[in-house]
Amino acid sequence: MNLDAILSRIDDDLDESLERLFAFLRIPSISTDPAYDAACRDAATWLNEDFAAMGFSSKVRPTTGKPMVLAKSNGSADGPTILFYGHYDVQPVDPLDLWEEDPFAPRLVTRADGTRMIVARGACDDKGQLMTFVEAVRAILNVEGRLPVPLTILIEGEEESGSPSLPAFLASAGDELRADAAFVCDTGMWDAETPAIALSLRGLVGEEITVRCANRDLHSGQFGGPARNPNHVLAQILADLHDADGRVAVPGFYDGVVEVPPETKANWDGLGLSAEAFLGPIGLSEPAGEKDRTVLEKVWARPTLEVNGMWGGYTGRGFKTVIPAEARAKVSFRLVGEQEPERLREAFRAFVRERVPADCSVEFAEHGGSPALTVPVDWPMLRLGQEALADEWGRPTAMVGMGGSIPIVHAFKHKLGMDSLMIGFALEDDNVHSPNEKYDLTSFHKGIRSWARVLAAL
Amino acid sequence: MNLDAILSRIDDDLDESLERLFAFLRIPSISTDPAYDAACRDAATWLNEDFAAMGFSSKVRPTTGKPMVLAKSNGSADGPTILFYGHYDVQPVDPLDLWEEDPFAPRLVTRADGTRMIVARGACDDKGQLMTFVEAVRAILNVEGRLPVPLTILIEGEEESGSPSLPAFLASAGDELRADAAFVCDTGMWDAETPAIALSLRGLVGEEITVRCANRDLHSGQFGGPARNPNHVLAQILADLHDADGRVAVPGFYDGVVEVPPETKANWDGLGLSAEAFLGPIGLSEPAGEKDRTVLEKVWARPTLEVNGMWGGYTGRGFKTVIPAEARAKVSFRLVGEQEPERLREAFRAFVRERVPADCSVEFAEHGGSPALTVPVDWPMLRLGQEALADEWGRPTAMVGMGGSIPIVHAFKHKLGMDSLMIGFALEDDNVHSPNEKYDLTSFHKGIRSWARVLAAL
Repeated sequence: MNLDAILSRIDDDLDESLERLFAFLRIPSISTDPAYDAACRDAATWLNEDFAAMGFSSKVRPTTGKPMVLAKSNGSADGPTILFYGHYDVQPVDPLDLWEEDPFAPRLVTRADGTRMIVARGACDDKGQLMTFVEAVRAILNVEGRLPVPLTILIEGEEESGSPSLPAFLASAGDELRADAAFVCDTGMWDAETPAIALSLRGLVGEEITVRCANRDLHSGQFGGPARNPNHVLAQILADLHDADGRVAVPGFYDGVVEVPPETKANWDGLGLSAEAFLGPIGLSEPAGEKDRTVLEKVWARPTLEVNGMWGGYTGRGFKTVIPAEARAKVSFRLVGEQEPERLREAFRAFVRERVPADCSVEFAEHGGSPALTVPVDWPMLRLGQEALADEWGRPTAMVGMGGSIPIVHAFKHKLGMDSLMIGFALEDDNVHSPNEKYDLTSFHKGIRSWARVLAAL
Repeated sequence: MNLDAILSRIDDDLDESLERLFAFLRIPSISTDPAYDAACRDAATWLNEDFAAMGFSSKVRPTTGKPMVLAKSNGSADGPTILFYGHYDVQPVDPLDLWEEDPFAPRLVTRADGTRMIVARGACDDKGQLMTFVEAVRAILNVEGRLPVPLTILIEGEEESGSPSLPAFLASAGDELRADAAFVCDTGMWDAETPAIALSLRGLVGEEITVRCANRDLHSGQFGGPARNPNHVLAQILADLHDADGRVAVPGFYDGVVEVPPETKANWDGLGLSAEAFLGPIGLSEPAGEKDRTVLEKVWARPTLEVNGMWGGYTGRGFKTVIPAEARAKVSFRLVGEQEPERLREAFRAFVRERVPADCSVEFAEHGGSPALTVPVDWPMLRLGQEALADEWGRPTAMVGMGGSIPIVHAFKHKLGMDSLMIGFALEDDNVHSPNEKYDLTSFHKGIRSWARVLAAL
């Protein structure tokens, strides 16, 4: 393969690549909110047409939830079969008033130093990221007329909402997905100059709890005192979830947590990230969470429990002296090592239940669950990726942990026996899941070039 | 005065009285939400026109907030001057999906036993209640052509949002309001058969707190662990506000609380209200709040602190793994005895501040404040009201405390030197401040007759 010609082609076609990405970003494919069902279908259709135009056998595949897009390369390429995975769905955009522009009107913004960034919901996570791979494939096909290896592309639409349809889809379509390695573009750089490959992901368990007390909203003058306030019950439960040392207080929560080996910890310490450097950009200075752990340990190797949402009573403007009938919270745990999602879910529910007064009730709703994942350090694909990235970025590739969760990577391992090469070009200031999400133009451009190098090396 | 003729006239005109009330209820005069500013003005205009039609000198009086309606009877009546007070504003209607019908489409609903009730936001609090007095006045004017005493009617539009414009209005219009006694119709019956006069009101302090941590919403995978979560900070603060015995833990909170005299407590015990009877109708069985206090003590004579609203992070459908930048709560205290609102506010703020981590911040917003109030038990007007009510309802009048707050009654006492006769016909199941608010037709009808008897006795 003529790598130089491919890289030149990528450089020459950058404007067209951006145009395609912008068209994709204009589709408000928020998976967690049923109001955007049609937009999710539009995003799947858009990808399907793009893959077909590139010569793939591509189909929109229905599931019990949002559709998948599954595309297979044609031709007689030999070598290891690769499955690429990404997701077309994006996070909700609220609070909308903190966005400087419409989140679904993508635009290129030039900074004072002349660098540029793509601003839109999904610019990074994961539309921008997955398109780095797609554009690399397009450039190779344009230059070479064929791919070096057989390639399957799978793009799902429920990553941001816990991938509920995934298990059934993998069970039914598993044979079509089977490959020698999975490539995933949903992770980040170490910093703006240093590429990274992720060796581990935290698992995730999502729970929603509803505490109900009185059979209706009450006037706090008429009933305040004797009538139980579910806001108080819920606040006490949420406060009890952590002890004074920042540890999660749910019994058995730390079962299965594995300590990081000293050599890995030494590597991480070598990255030289202080708590100040980690917290400074987000406006904080005092590390929260477990004492006596570094920030990298906390986000890569320690489990957490976070209240992602809580609400009860009157939350509008002004004041309402109400004792509400119910209060709710959305809680997630990040898992590491061998922690078991369903055992933790039960331990959490038991912890909550024993704190609900006898005349009140609590209801639980499940929002997905997946254990943590680790890639074997001796997997040859890691070295290949490491070198390709170092060639593109001119720096050694950092081998990192990831604090987030990508449920499908676990499924690839345990359902399809496949390890995943997790390469991504997100930066810490990309505002992923926040207002004004962005993706550096450099991430997009050099991301495409990076994938071209990886594919060429196969 | 020919009381029998007046009472007959009230019975005969009931349908027309209801029509007027329904027209008034159709105006969505929610004072706490600026989206309903125009509706509040409409409600004031509607009352002003009705008072003018009855021959009063009536005016809509602008304030720094919602307008007041101030009407004065004409003619040369002697006797004590009476100031009647009510409020045209109503509570917000959320959660709207729990209403069986449009809250601003009033209707008469017949129960299985044939009794009827008026259903609408404000049916009881306070549109239905204030119209019992207005209709009594109208009947007297229709029959007698004149009132027995000089009457001023003051209807405000900010009672449900802490009456912020009231102090300035009283300072400027005080002389026009000066009277020998205030009559207020914003309280309740003891039960459906037993009339009541309120001898005390709890005071109210409203506070809103905003805890801010990171400078933006964060991804809980990327930042969960080291980054402080304001939901956790706020939940801990709210949990700390009460101790394990149900007492408010803010230092100095109970300063100024006066124990109920043994004879009053004996009277209340004589009303025979068990915790089960109080809590059963609202679906609860275990009294919350301070241990070793009866339910009547708790709502009439003990201070409380309630979280009326709390929210932070993602509260929509589905799930979002976010660590929010901020979390908020609306908190109110009910005051008794000599508790001082501004001192309590400061004690609360200090309590909150010392629980906010050094790299986070907290902001406070004030939502009104008024101390508790007690009517002197030897006030002659009490006996007059007690007898008039007993005549109408055929039962001795209960002399009760009230758990709620009516800031203006305190202002009448301390700014204008006037005690208030608090008579009302609300029932405990009226869903005041809740979905499906109602007012029994009997409350409305016999309420009008009760006020006619009170006025005739003057």
